[in-house]
Amino acid sequence: MQAVGLITEYNPLHNGHLYHLQQAKKLTGADCSVVVMSGNWLQRGEPAILDKWARTQLALEAGADLIVELPVFYATQPAHLFARGGVEILTALGCESLVFGTEHPDLNFEELMTALPKTQAAFKHYNATYATQFNTALQQSTGVSLTQANDMLSFCYYLANQHFGNQLNLLPIKRQVAVHNDAAIRPASDFASGTAIRAAAINAAWAEIQPVVPPQTLAMLQTQRLQTWADFWPYLKYQLMTAAVTQTHQIDQMAEGLEYRMKEVAQAATSFEDLMRRAKSKRYTYTRLQRVATAALLQLTAAEVQTAQAHNYVRVLGFNATGQAYLHQVKKQLTLPLYTKINKALRLHGLALDYRAGRVYEMVNGQSQDLYRRPIMSSGNIG
Amino acid sequence: MQAVGLITEYNPLHNGHLYHLQQAKKLTGADCSVVVMSGNWLQRGEPAILDKWARTQLALEAGADLIVELPVFYATQPAHLFARGGVEILTALGCESLVFGTEHPDLNFEELMTALPKTQAAFKHYNATYATQFNTALQQSTGVSLTQANDMLSFCYYLANQHFGNQLNLLPIKRQVAVHNDAAIRPASDFASGTAIRAAAINAAWAEIQPVVPPQTLAMLQTQRLQTWADFWPYLKYQLMTAAVTQTHQIDQMAEGLEYRMKEVAQAATSFEDLMRRAKSKRYTYTRLQRVATAALLQLTAAEVQTAQAHNYVRVLGFNATGQAYLHQVKKQLTLPLYTKINKALRLHGLALDYRAGRVYEMVNGQSQDLYRRPIMSSGNIG
Repeated sequence: MQAVGLITEYNPLHNGHLYHLQQAKKLTGADCSVVVMSGNWLQRGEPAILDKWARTQLALEAGADLIVELPVFYATQPAHLFARGGVEILTALGCESLVFGTEHPDLNFEELMTALPKTQAAFKHYNATYATQFNTALQQSTGVSLTQANDMLSFCYYLANQHFGNQLNLLPIKRQVAVHNDAAIRPASDFASGTAIRAAAINAAWAEIQPVVPPQTLAMLQTQRLQTWADFWPYLKYQLMTAAVTQTHQIDQMAEGLEYRMKEVAQAATSFEDLMRRAKSKRYTYTRLQRVATAALLQLTAAEVQTAQAHNYVRVLGFNATGQAYLHQVKKQLTLPLYTKINKALRLHGLALDYRAGRVYEMVNGQSQDLYRRPIMSSGNIG
Repeated sequence: MQAVGLITEYNPLHNGHLYHLQQAKKLTGADCSVVVMSGNWLQRGEPAILDKWARTQLALEAGADLIVELPVFYATQPAHLFARGGVEILTALGCESLVFGTEHPDLNFEELMTALPKTQAAFKHYNATYATQFNTALQQSTGVSLTQANDMLSFCYYLANQHFGNQLNLLPIKRQVAVHNDAAIRPASDFASGTAIRAAAINAAWAEIQPVVPPQTLAMLQTQRLQTWADFWPYLKYQLMTAAVTQTHQIDQMAEGLEYRMKEVAQAATSFEDLMRRAKSKRYTYTRLQRVATAALLQLTAAEVQTAQAHNYVRVLGFNATGQAYLHQVKKQLTLPLYTKINKALRLHGLALDYRAGRVYEMVNGQSQDLYRRPIMSSGNIG
């Protein structure tokens, strides 16, 4: 059996994702699709609208054969680390290829890559985001600038793949949403951005959502609790107000001095959006600030995130018969530990950060995220 | 002018407190009564049912002339430290005497005191509470055991007074509540315990409360938001679940190893009472565990509490004309800093812990506890 990999968030799973999954199988002729999916906390520094189990269920129903979790210490990171975590897992699982959507699949990513400074440590000297430094270097040497989120992420997949010995065949495809952050669902379109779909779901605008998602997603959005930052805002405010700045200083992605600003604005802010507006400056993008907020909420320190990143794993969330057979096939050659259920040792050590992230999500969502949860086994699929 | 001091919590102010205040003036013939009152977090490790401003208002209406706050780093401590903080403030304010209620005013506290080991450091060797060690030592040398809360506290006033050079004349009086923790209000009694009154207030049993409190207290309980641990439970649970045990280990009054137990039980507990039940063991009293919970909620570390205790202050919450005149009289000889309003420097440094404690209380209570608050000035009194 051969497998194709995908790196996803499914927040929530929509027609663009369905197209991506179908194309991945079609382009590669793979027997099995392996989906690495962020858990309950996402790359743009926000909670998933549906929990990881609901999203795993939707992925299975959309035809994914094996779904594994991208651990929180990679899922809530800038593109280059998010990509690294996902590529490491797919490589460990012996996938042949990685298919991903991008705004400009015709870009010559491999050529662009050669233009980068050899050592990425060169980027650490400035108080700017990785993406900005990246683009500055690229622009200087090639004239190309990756301003679209998925072009940037795609580029990071190439870098990550190189890092892990180019085990994956990288296949960019054209994304089926013109503008990633399109704020509204366009009439008479089969596709819409996750942002637009989430906004419509919060407003219960089901008729708008119906054309752009599989029916299972619509049903899930209508029946499950939907999580947004507003739900976690009281905890974040409490945390920023009570933690000593010396402690907040240790939070992952907290830039020098930002701990004072976050504490000060948290005291005055009346909502999460208000916090972001007050914290915003030229130095920091909203996404960066949201990721810092996520790390603060989950009390993820830079030190523990770095340590955890050196100990990635394969945490299985769900599979069908094909996925199960594939997992059985590769099990013995796996280069990362395989976790299917949580025991006390994992809760305290190996999976501690995901477990913690799940407990916080659970305070709002109300469903156990890790304790007593087993991978979802699907009897069939529609793919 | 001469002043008599009282150390109180007024949670809430009831007829027993009114009697205490009247007796204090009567016994001493003082011109002015100075009340040191815990702020929003109390000695038994719980939030005050009414905020410190409502309770200051009630104290003024009950005849107190000057009310100052016992800082959170003394208010939420075991009896010997609670007593020390209060006695230090009254001494600094030049009071002549301290009048306090006790179960057994006829006990010879001064004689008992001589029976104690000279160095209190001897107590640090055991994993037991200060009170227990205290009593063991007392029992061994005198045969007397101080099992009632206010006998113990009274004894601590003698120790604290000795520590600060015996500036106060100590006058114990008989408490007007037979049993401090009496769970219910007894019919046809003018007096009831704070515990019983709070329980009745939560149940809106106003007819039961009416005979045992001044009318102002009843009105306040009927119109203000009432705070209990249930309100803060989600924040505490969140905090215990997300903080690393190495961090929780640093929390004030956290005994060796208790951080693991607290984290473990917090995950399973469904309410604050449930947490206490699960955390309880022979080693720790409920009061100790509640104080630890308070420190964890407010993220008070042992280190910062100890530092703060070395920098006590006089924070004025309210006064009438008499209190104002007295404050004016003693202002120049004050041996502790005097704070009447909060500025940014105080918020960040001198008053940082009280400010933090107030912000957490405020998240539930909704009223600013420190920012923009000035001492309450009362035009008259009923005393």
